Amino acid sequence: MIRIVSVFLLIIFLVSCKDNKEHIVSKAEHEVDKKTEIKNPKSDVFYQYSIWFAFVNKVFDGDLKVSELKTKGDIGLGSFDYLDGELVMLDGVPYRIRENGEISVGQDEDEIVYADATFFNEDGVFQIEGPVDYPSFQNKLNTKMESEHYFYAYRVPVKLDYVKLGGVPKVEKPFKDGLDVLLPIRPVFEAENISGTLVGFYCPEYIGNINAFGHHFHFISDDRKWGGHVMEFKTTHDIDVPWDQKTSYAFDLPKNKTFEGVKLDSEFQYN
Amino acid sequence: MIRIVSVFLLIIFLVSCKDNKEHIVSKAEHEVDKKTEIKNPKSDVFYQYSIWFAFVNKVFDGDLKVSELKTKGDIGLGSFDYLDGELVMLDGVPYRIRENGEISVGQDEDEIVYADATFFNEDGVFQIEGPVDYPSFQNKLNTKMESEHYFYAYRVPVKLDYVKLGGVPKVEKPFKDGLDVLLPIRPVFEAENISGTLVGFYCPEYIGNINAFGHHFHFISDDRKWGGHVMEFKTTHDIDVPWDQKTSYAFDLPKNKTFEGVKLDSEFQYN
Repeated sequence: MIRIVSVFLLIIFLVSCKDNKEHIVSKAEHEVDKKTEIKNPKSDVFYQYSIWFAFVNKVFDGDLKVSELKTKGDIGLGSFDYLDGELVMLDGVPYRIRENGEISVGQDEDEIVYADATFFNEDGVFQIEGPVDYPSFQNKLNTKMESEHYFYAYRVPVKLDYVKLGGVPKVEKPFKDGLDVLLPIRPVFEAENISGTLVGFYCPEYIGNINAFGHHFHFISDDRKWGGHVMEFKTTHDIDVPWDQKTSYAFDLPKNKTFEGVKLDSEFQYN
Repeated sequence: MIRIVSVFLLIIFLVSCKDNKEHIVSKAEHEVDKKTEIKNPKSDVFYQYSIWFAFVNKVFDGDLKVSELKTKGDIGLGSFDYLDGELVMLDGVPYRIRENGEISVGQDEDEIVYADATFFNEDGVFQIEGPVDYPSFQNKLNTKMESEHYFYAYRVPVKLDYVKLGGVPKVEKPFKDGLDVLLPIRPVFEAENISGTLVGFYCPEYIGNINAFGHHFHFISDDRKWGGHVMEFKTTHDIDVPWDQKTSYAFDLPKNKTFEGVKLDSEFQYN
């Protein structure tokens, strides 16, 4: 009798174990699916850290970690804390270009003072015939937009005959000069016959002092040894321009006393 | 022998079932926790649909469903499509106040043309001593902010001696007049000795044409039968002001031809 009961119990437990397991695994998988959907790294938001107006007015101590920035996009541009390097993010790698032109990869604990970032979801590609320079490149981008009221991200492989890039000069507290003073005296790098990628963004005019109106591009060479803020370029080659239209925008403000107390009185726009 | 083996097997399965079950349940719970964290409905973002500049310039056909708005906050204010009603969202319920003053609850399929919304996470409460009117109430709010550069949300229970509210006049396509013309001739409602809730937001000046600078409040009565855009109020009672500081801001743009082609030439600010 005991033997029959124990075999019977064994069968019951085998069946109930199987059911339980299947049910629970299925629930776990279900949650994982939902989680993946929610955390979708290809979210289509144009993300910005800090505001342009604060950056112009000497809020040079940000508190956005590189590790956090990497959750906001796989391309990006900006500047590191204390202007200790320009930022170009490409394929999720945040390159840091110091004022002497040296390039390293930003570490997770490094802090960013200002950045644009997004996951590049290509919406299309158009071709610009060479020869073309930076102003005519920007004009062409303007004519290709579905609407000047939307935001755009670009990730453009290029072969350039000539390019002039700007770096940023590292500053120390107390911050004396704003971008209106610092950018005209920024370090400048020039190169000829160089291949790389233009990473850039377009903001509509109504963005006002929150970001820079128009186009803003940074460049990083294919060998990842040379980069910065694009000031000029020329090329005889055609350029294929992959573009990504953004209709969602989000920004986070610095949470520190410098930002809280800053006088936003100096205006400066550039691109 | 068979009996001993089956009892032994039974014990093994009991143990392994227990282990499996615990492990899997724990994984499922873990995912649920993560999911809850990610989907946290109390996310601390100030959400906006469309931009103020477009709203002023006659983009009166929005495409944000009420069901979507409800995922962005439990308080909010705005206007329905074609200005067919002002919106006050309180405790997650989107009340619709039509131009004749009639109140209904917005349905999930209804569309919004412009809105501010957020999950109200109280950061503190301060008291304003009565008597107080709307301008002095706003001035007091200004003095209580940690920084005028942050955003704020308010959800304030009030007993008002007098209040004057504005509605919106329903419009039809083709839209002839912008808010600069329509608001000065808006329907106006007045009441005395009424209890209700002020739902409102503060935007810093740098928000420019994206939203309305300063404070913007809507009101809904305790019996949910009366509400609108706050134009004036007076009360002899003290007011306890629960406030919520926001350092994250996000907005979605309308995805339609009206927005894409709008000429953003008319400026108008009010609060």
